[in-house]
Amino acid sequence: MDPQAANQTTGADSLLDRLCLSLVSGVGPRLYKALVDHFGSASAVLAAPMSELRMVPGIGAKLSQAVSRARDEIDATQEIEFCRQQGIALVGLGEAGYPRMLAEIPDPPTILYVHGELKPQDSLAIAIVGSRHATQYGLAQAERLAASLARAGLVIVSGLARGVDAAAHRGALAAGGRTIAVLGGGLAQIYPPEHKPLADEIAGQGAVASEAPPRSQPLSGSFPQRNRIISGLSLGVIVVEASTHSGALITARHAMEQNRDVFAVPGRVDNRMAHGCHRLLRDGAKLVESADDVLEELGPLVAATPNATGQVIHHPAELLLNELEQQVLQSITGDSASIDEIVSSSGLPTSQVLSTLSVLEMRRLIRRLSGNRVMRP
Amino acid sequence: MDPQAANQTTGADSLLDRLCLSLVSGVGPRLYKALVDHFGSASAVLAAPMSELRMVPGIGAKLSQAVSRARDEIDATQEIEFCRQQGIALVGLGEAGYPRMLAEIPDPPTILYVHGELKPQDSLAIAIVGSRHATQYGLAQAERLAASLARAGLVIVSGLARGVDAAAHRGALAAGGRTIAVLGGGLAQIYPPEHKPLADEIAGQGAVASEAPPRSQPLSGSFPQRNRIISGLSLGVIVVEASTHSGALITARHAMEQNRDVFAVPGRVDNRMAHGCHRLLRDGAKLVESADDVLEELGPLVAATPNATGQVIHHPAELLLNELEQQVLQSITGDSASIDEIVSSSGLPTSQVLSTLSVLEMRRLIRRLSGNRVMRP
Repeated sequence: MDPQAANQTTGADSLLDRLCLSLVSGVGPRLYKALVDHFGSASAVLAAPMSELRMVPGIGAKLSQAVSRARDEIDATQEIEFCRQQGIALVGLGEAGYPRMLAEIPDPPTILYVHGELKPQDSLAIAIVGSRHATQYGLAQAERLAASLARAGLVIVSGLARGVDAAAHRGALAAGGRTIAVLGGGLAQIYPPEHKPLADEIAGQGAVASEAPPRSQPLSGSFPQRNRIISGLSLGVIVVEASTHSGALITARHAMEQNRDVFAVPGRVDNRMAHGCHRLLRDGAKLVESADDVLEELGPLVAATPNATGQVIHHPAELLLNELEQQVLQSITGDSASIDEIVSSSGLPTSQVLSTLSVLEMRRLIRRLSGNRVMRP
Repeated sequence: MDPQAANQTTGADSLLDRLCLSLVSGVGPRLYKALVDHFGSASAVLAAPMSELRMVPGIGAKLSQAVSRARDEIDATQEIEFCRQQGIALVGLGEAGYPRMLAEIPDPPTILYVHGELKPQDSLAIAIVGSRHATQYGLAQAERLAASLARAGLVIVSGLARGVDAAAHRGALAAGGRTIAVLGGGLAQIYPPEHKPLADEIAGQGAVASEAPPRSQPLSGSFPQRNRIISGLSLGVIVVEASTHSGALITARHAMEQNRDVFAVPGRVDNRMAHGCHRLLRDGAKLVESADDVLEELGPLVAATPNATGQVIHHPAELLLNELEQQVLQSITGDSASIDEIVSSSGLPTSQVLSTLSVLEMRRLIRRLSGNRVMRP
C-alpha cells in the first residue's frame, strides 16, 4: 500500500493500527492473527481492555499490557513517514498487492516492507539458497541456474547473503529477469553492508522485502524466521551448496512444511559444502542438474498466473514450450476442447496439432479424453 | 572343482559332459538349464536324439544339431587339461564351492572359471563399478570406498576395466582385503592387457572369474552379460562415476532386477561422468558419501555368513560394530534372549548390556520384544 494512503481504512481497520499492532514487541504473525481473529480488527485489539486481551491463548500479563499501551508508546505515524521518505511501500496481508503464494503459508507476515515492486507474476517464483561459504562451484551453479530459470520466466527469490544468495540474485539480474531479496533485518539496514549496491539493483528489477521495520537491526535470530518467507514466496526451493548446519536446510524444511518442492544440487562427496544437499537428496529432495529439471518437476500452479509477457501460465512446465506448443496449449480454453476445435482456433494443420498435442501430453500439460477431446489436468 | 576330478560324476552327471554342453555355441545359462531340466542331466542332453531336443522351447534345428554333435566336435577334455595347466579351477552351478549369492539370480553361469579362490565369506561382497573414463575424483572415490569397505570386512567385486574398476580392486588390495574381478572374456585373455599384473595380484588375494572359456576373446557383446555376474555376486552395487551411456548403468539395472541394493556416488553437475550416477539417484538409488552409508543401508543377509575372522554375520551393519557391541550381539543365540540371559552369557554389567542393546536396536540389528526379551529381526 502506498504510504500516503496510510490512514485509509481497509474494512474497519486502518493501516496505522495494523502497523502499530504488528510493531508490538512479542506479537508475531501467529499472535497477531489470533488477536485479530478474536477482536475482529487491529483497531479493536488496540482498544481492548487488558483482561479481555488475556483471554487469547498466548497473551499473558506482559503482552496484554504492551498491546493496550501500544497506541501511546509506538509511533506508527512516524514509522510510516520514515517509509515514505525512504521509498518503502507497506503491503499488508489481505491487500491486493500482497504476494499470493506467501498468503498461503500458516504464518504469513502481517506487513511486508517493500523496496521496489511486487507484481502478479511473482507467483511464478523459485528460491535459490545456499551457503555463505560456497565454493567456486556452488557460486557458478547458483548463478547459472538463476540465469536460466529467470530466462525461462521464473522470478528468483533469495536472501541477499554472501555466497550462494548473492550469486543467485546476480544470475537473475544478468539474465534480465526479476529477482526478490528477503532480508532478516530492516530495509534501511542492508546486511551485509557491501551488498547495498546489489540491493539497489534488485529493487530496480524486482523487490527487496522484509517483515522487519526498516530500522531493525539484522539479528541472527531473525534469519530462520526470514527463511519461511523465502520459501513461502516460492513454488520451490533449490539448495545449491550447504553444509549440514547451513540455514539453507531450514529454508528447505520450511518449504516442505509449506508443501513446496525442494530441490538440491549435488556435488563432490569430498566437498563439505555439498553434504547438506546430499542429506536433502537422501530425504527425498529432487536432484537438479539444469533449469529444465526444475521446470519439469514443479507441481501445477494453485492458480493461473500471468507471466512477464502477459501470457497466463497454469503450470511451470509451460515455460519449457516453444512458440508452436504454446499456441496449441493456449487454444485449449475452457474445461476441454476437441481436436477439431483446436485445429480451427489455432489455424494450424491437423498433423501439426496432433504431433504438438503428443508433446504436451508427454509433458503432462494436457490429458486425452475419449472422443478426440483433450483437457488441461 | 579341481580339474583332476573332471571325470568324477556329480549325481548322474560328469563335469566333462556339463562342460561340453556349456561350450555349445548358442547354449547360454537359460537354455542350458531348460535342457538339463528336461532331460535330467547334461549327459542325457548330449545323448538325446535331435527330435527330442527340439521339444525344448528355444531349441531349433540348428541348436539341436549342435548339441547332438557336441561330444564329437567339442574337445572338453582338452579344455579341462588347459585349465589344469593354467591353474584355473572350474566351479559348476550346484557344487559346494559355487558362490551362494550368484546361484540365486535367474540366469547363473553354468560353469565359472576361476583363477585364485572363492570362499564362503565372498557372500559378503559389494560391487564397485563405473566409467573407464573416470576423472581423478572418481578414481579417488572408488579407491577410498573400496579400501574402507574392505577394511570393514566386505569383499570388493568389479570388472578389471580401466578407470573405476581398477581403482576399486586396487583400493581393496591396498587395504589388505579380498577382491574379485569378473571378466567378459576368458581368463587366458586378460583384458585390458596392461591389467595382467593386477589380475595376478587379485587372484592372489581373492579371485578372477569368468563364465567364458579361458581362451575366449573379450568381445564387447559379452560385457553386458558379464555385468549380471558382477551384481549377482554382490549384496549391492555402488556406481562411482558413469556417463548416461555407461555399462555401469547396465550393472545397476541387473542389480535392481536381482533385488540387490543400488548405490551411487554424486558428483559435480558440470562433470559429465557424474550424470549417470545422478540419474540413478533420481530413480531411487541410495546416495553414498562414505562406507558407513553403504553398511547401514544394505539389507539383511539371506543366510548367515562367516566373515574373514570366522565370525558369523547376519547383517552387513554388524561390520560397523565395536568389540563390545559384537560381544552382546553374539550372545543372542536362538530365536530370542532375555536381558538376564544376555547379562549372564556375556559376563558384562547389566547397565552396559542395556546401553549396548540400545545401540543395536538403533542400528536395527535387534528388536525388543515384550517381557524384557530381544530378538534378531
